[in-house]
Amino acid sequence: MNIAIVGASGYSGEVLVKLLAGHPSVNLAAVTSRSKCGQPVSAVIPQLRGVLDDLLFEDSNPEELAAREDLDCFFLALPHGAAATFARPLVDAGKKVIDLSADFRLSDPAIYEEFYGAAHPDVELLQKAIYLLPEIAEAGSEKKQLIACPGCYPTSALTPLYPLLKDGIIGTEHIVVNSMSGVSGAGKKAAEDFIYCERNESAKAYGLPKHRHLSEIEEQLSKASGSKVVIQFNPHLAAMNRGIATTITVPSGGSSIEALYESWNKVYKGKPFVCVLPSGQTPDTKYVVGTNRVDISAVKDERTGNFVITSAEDNLMKGASGQAVQIMNLWLGIEETTGLIHG
Amino acid sequence: MNIAIVGASGYSGEVLVKLLAGHPSVNLAAVTSRSKCGQPVSAVIPQLRGVLDDLLFEDSNPEELAAREDLDCFFLALPHGAAATFARPLVDAGKKVIDLSADFRLSDPAIYEEFYGAAHPDVELLQKAIYLLPEIAEAGSEKKQLIACPGCYPTSALTPLYPLLKDGIIGTEHIVVNSMSGVSGAGKKAAEDFIYCERNESAKAYGLPKHRHLSEIEEQLSKASGSKVVIQFNPHLAAMNRGIATTITVPSGGSSIEALYESWNKVYKGKPFVCVLPSGQTPDTKYVVGTNRVDISAVKDERTGNFVITSAEDNLMKGASGQAVQIMNLWLGIEETTGLIHG
Amino acid sequence: MNIAIVGASGYSGEVLVKLLAGHPSVNLAAVTSRSKCGQPVSAVIPQLRGVLDDLLFEDSNPEELAAREDLDCFFLALPHGAAATFARPLVDAGKKVIDLSADFRLSDPAIYEEFYGAAHPDVELLQKAIYLLPEIAEAGSEKKQLIACPGCYPTSALTPLYPLLKDGIIGTEHIVVNSMSGVSGAGKKAAEDFIYCERNESAKAYGLPKHRHLSEIEEQLSKASGSKVVIQFNPHLAAMNRGIATTITVPSGGSSIEALYESWNKVYKGKPFVCVLPSGQTPDTKYVVGTNRVDISAVKDERTGNFVITSAEDNLMKGASGQAVQIMNLWLGIEETTGLIHG
Amino acid sequence: MNIAIVGASGYSGEVLVKLLAGHPSVNLAAVTSRSKCGQPVSAVIPQLRGVLDDLLFEDSNPEELAAREDLDCFFLALPHGAAATFARPLVDAGKKVIDLSADFRLSDPAIYEEFYGAAHPDVELLQKAIYLLPEIAEAGSEKKQLIACPGCYPTSALTPLYPLLKDGIIGTEHIVVNSMSGVSGAGKKAAEDFIYCERNESAKAYGLPKHRHLSEIEEQLSKASGSKVVIQFNPHLAAMNRGIATTITVPSGGSSIEALYESWNKVYKGKPFVCVLPSGQTPDTKYVVGTNRVDISAVKDERTGNFVITSAEDNLMKGASGQAVQIMNLWLGIEETTGLIHG
Repeated sequence: MNIAIVGASGYSGEVLVKLLAGHPSVNLAAVTSRSKCGQPVSAVIPQLRGVLDDLLFEDSNPEELAAREDLDCFFLALPHGAAATFARPLVDAGKKVIDLSADFRLSDPAIYEEFYGAAHPDVELLQKAIYLLPEIAEAGSEKKQLIACPGCYPTSALTPLYPLLKDGIIGTEHIVVNSMSGVSGAGKKAAEDFIYCERNESAKAYGLPKHRHLSEIEEQLSKASGSKVVIQFNPHLAAMNRGIATTITVPSGGSSIEALYESWNKVYKGKPFVCVLPSGQTPDTKYVVGTNRVDISAVKDERTGNFVITSAEDNLMKGASGQAVQIMNLWLGIEETTGLIHG
Repeated sequence: MNIAIVGASGYSGEVLVKLLAGHPSVNLAAVTSRSKCGQPVSAVIPQLRGVLDDLLFEDSNPEELAAREDLDCFFLALPHGAAATFARPLVDAGKKVIDLSADFRLSDPAIYEEFYGAAHPDVELLQKAIYLLPEIAEAGSEKKQLIACPGCYPTSALTPLYPLLKDGIIGTEHIVVNSMSGVSGAGKKAAEDFIYCERNESAKAYGLPKHRHLSEIEEQLSKASGSKVVIQFNPHLAAMNRGIATTITVPSGGSSIEALYESWNKVYKGKPFVCVLPSGQTPDTKYVVGTNRVDISAVKDERTGNFVITSAEDNLMKGASGQAVQIMNLWLGIEETTGLIHG
Repeated sequence: MNIAIVGASGYSGEVLVKLLAGHPSVNLAAVTSRSKCGQPVSAVIPQLRGVLDDLLFEDSNPEELAAREDLDCFFLALPHGAAATFARPLVDAGKKVIDLSADFRLSDPAIYEEFYGAAHPDVELLQKAIYLLPEIAEAGSEKKQLIACPGCYPTSALTPLYPLLKDGIIGTEHIVVNSMSGVSGAGKKAAEDFIYCERNESAKAYGLPKHRHLSEIEEQLSKASGSKVVIQFNPHLAAMNRGIATTITVPSGGSSIEALYESWNKVYKGKPFVCVLPSGQTPDTKYVVGTNRVDISAVKDERTGNFVITSAEDNLMKGASGQAVQIMNLWLGIEETTGLIHG
Repeated sequence: MNIAIVGASGYSGEVLVKLLAGHPSVNLAAVTSRSKCGQPVSAVIPQLRGVLDDLLFEDSNPEELAAREDLDCFFLALPHGAAATFARPLVDAGKKVIDLSADFRLSDPAIYEEFYGAAHPDVELLQKAIYLLPEIAEAGSEKKQLIACPGCYPTSALTPLYPLLKDGIIGTEHIVVNSMSGVSGAGKKAAEDFIYCERNESAKAYGLPKHRHLSEIEEQLSKASGSKVVIQFNPHLAAMNRGIATTITVPSGGSSIEALYESWNKVYKGKPFVCVLPSGQTPDTKYVVGTNRVDISAVKDERTGNFVITSAEDNLMKGASGQAVQIMNLWLGIEETTGLIHG
């Protein structure tokens, strides 16, 4: 199985390269980047010195890549809009495509346009895509040719909330999601607001009240509950490289904390990448960074009647590249954890 | 005016020493600490080398301090419980006492016991104390002999919420307060969970669902609204030294964002230490750390009908020692900003 | 005394604005920046919200500024090359000029060209300038019209080394200077190598073997010793906002540690901004950041016969803007510490 | 092959557990810690939730461990002094012992006593031990029963210096080694000087002039050169979790930079864990943290006649646990990189 990564010069691309370079069941055969074309991978990602010295970045031409018979599966680590441009010829050529962008995450093109500020780039192709959060997706979803990987914030919110809405443990009103993200979530962009001294020793909310990931969270929660869900989503930047800590307040509607945990355990028991912590033990990003795990926990506040649900994940692993490799593993029918247990 | 600081070896004590050492209208005459007794202040707080080399830490004996005729005003930077032990003889001796602990913040001793896990240390003295958040306190409060300074989280939440509840702009239901605090908020304690590598590159919620400061926030909000307010308060630790960023979600109840700002401007217009930012401009801790300011802002989310309110402050300045000095300035009848505009 | 700051949008400009805004003896009358022209100072430097809301950034036109009769003293916080362009008309118009750039630090234009890669912009004006490190400059230097403020690294190295070479305590051979600088030393530039995730959790040497500041250190040390001094200077970037820690290894040539301290004490005793720590007590940047102090210390290693000398300073204060204000204070004949003791 | 880790609750023990838990050729059969006895490994090292939930920390009894027939190889991640207590019965029982402490690094017990402040705990056993830096050790060293793993600072200094002294590229005089270490190098100890706010935003030298690792560096360099080498070693703490950046100044003695690189390439060409960077390209800890690599580079300064040599490594990987696993791989005769290429 020969793998290509398209657009591998950003932070999630970098992690994807590392994971696939060390993956025992696949061959990382091509890595592309317009800006890095011709350079050895280990020159651009020096963590891989001595490991990927001979693989060179190739140019990123959609049609040429689609025509390559030696490549079976493509990971797209591109900005939204650009991803669709590559997905189309690759899908037409029969390639497997695992897309880390937002282009195929939303089933409704109007919502895409509302949140991303441009018409959806390929509505027809969108019909063929599937949104795949492995632990809650329908069995067999991984066989679809074009797969949309969930976003980082959505993974941290959907993992705890999806089963609870599906099982009716919680209602759809007054769901408040607050998240703190490491700065790598903003990508590798050289903007003044992201230089070291501007983000160090700083904490702030941003993107209020309509961060793009909100659309994706709401669509999935609506699917889970069977009715339209509208939530409050407040993302924050914290002074760290990686990690997302999410805290959710939601009325319990009379449900017990036991019922909540039962709903979680039903879905997540035995799942290697979701760790349900006992009530009262709070997830911490430091324990999940570098892993493909999301840790979740909850308490019930008898004073307010709310559940307070917390989760933590590595935004570049379970929130992006690790999850993409997990999806590939499922598709290949190999052990879900292959290449993902860093020990 | 001769000032003493009791218990000045922690982080808020340290900031208090710096502020009062540089204050043009008062004389920092005594600094006490049991553990640092006999050492020069500049040996314990090396930032003050060359400034406070001759002032020595003294022993902390409540009765002896109370008997000192050369001292007029005492700042207590002590743990709760210990503060009351000092406050009693000092008040009896007619001294002005500005207390930074929790001992005199809650008017109801039962609530104190519920949240602090021990009976209130001096119920009688509690009657004489006043909780004083300068911008919303009644005129003349600063004349009271025993003053309780608000806590760090409460200041960041009460500043934006108090006027809104008082004016009926928002209701009392479904108020959700999330805060991110720098690690200095945990004090200068040598516990494994607070060593550098444990807090660096980490983000997590803690103290759910009943952090001690919750009691103080609720008491004040209840006072503002005239009815019992119960809220959700979710504190988090972020990897930075100083600063608190607070994000509040609350149903607008049909109120407009203009009404919200009008309520704020009515109280805070011209106040030097509250900065009302335009809707859409989010406070950032990096802009307030080192100042005695709290920045507040809000947006209305038409989709959810909620206001999302954000604030930022320095937990050791407006959240503790800066506010204590502000209160002293008011009491002395001098310019409120004296010694507090760091420029 | 009306002060203008030219080019105040970088990190040292920002600190300069804060210091002069709070300075009790001067009036900050104008702040210029081409890119920020028309904006309130407090919009560009939000730490000053509520303090400098009414002062607007003006355009930076050398001739127009020189013609302004209301302005007496100009601080230039500009890149090298640009500074000379402003200095010329200002000096011609009789204004006092305190320059924070490298344009007037080196007396030899050939050395300037070697290290800065371009011919010196104004050799004639250079003759009128004086390099002024206050603690070691000749009395009266501050009266010169055009003053070159020392660079950040040079201040941290010259303060401990200058007296030792002058007094012959150490020789001129085998001087090795290693420095660690906070990231603000690189300025406020939006380059990929300086975004948060690239500098966080990183340590590295850079600029080997001929960092620009080397030229300035060597010229001053040569002046101190009376013969040409050539040293090794190895700068490093550390993951912090502010501060420089410098460690110098130099053969003792048989001198005792007592002789070294005597040489220091002779010059620095009573100087408010140089703190000579006892042998064995190492300076730490955390104790000087926010102050205008440089802390120095030394040990003698009997095994190697070397002195190991350490210093720490705030690169934006004693290493730049604080020192510039100290120079202004000296020039005005007011207390050297005015506006610089942050308490 | 069944492996035991003795004393696995510190930072290097933690990394060792992760590496061995994921190692494809060995079985991590026992993990001991007096303080954590009875707890699941994944409770103490939550990064391993879902991976090592069933392995429990055992008690640390030297004799009982030595008597265990199911255990073949022991890693000792203990303080010096304690390590020897365990090594003796294990060696007597015929077990392979890989020791990460300082107990068997120095061949001269008098030097041990000088630098570690106590008599060597087991001089007889010391005779049987070998110091093993894999890239420069004699072939076959790994077969010795008792192996001393090099310290973190020594690995970063010896890797570049050893071949140069052996080949006579440099002399033994005026070698100056400056290092910056992440805070994990100080271990997991709850001391006030190591809490977050004390180490964050700080840089300082420490341990001058006789850090313990100096003894180990000098012994090895003396061995390389064939004569007694005495150097200056200046360690520093930087505000980061992991990583060591070392900068070495040494007179070139007329040798060319080409000769230096030839000496390095002769030894390190093809070695997976030493990366020789081109002259002018400086190692950065961020590129080696998480890997078992040490990157080295050098420039010649024609002005001073010195070489300036730089290196970077992960103090917990190549500087401790990664190197220990590398040694085990060599001993087992399997691919040196097994379990160590994180991709």
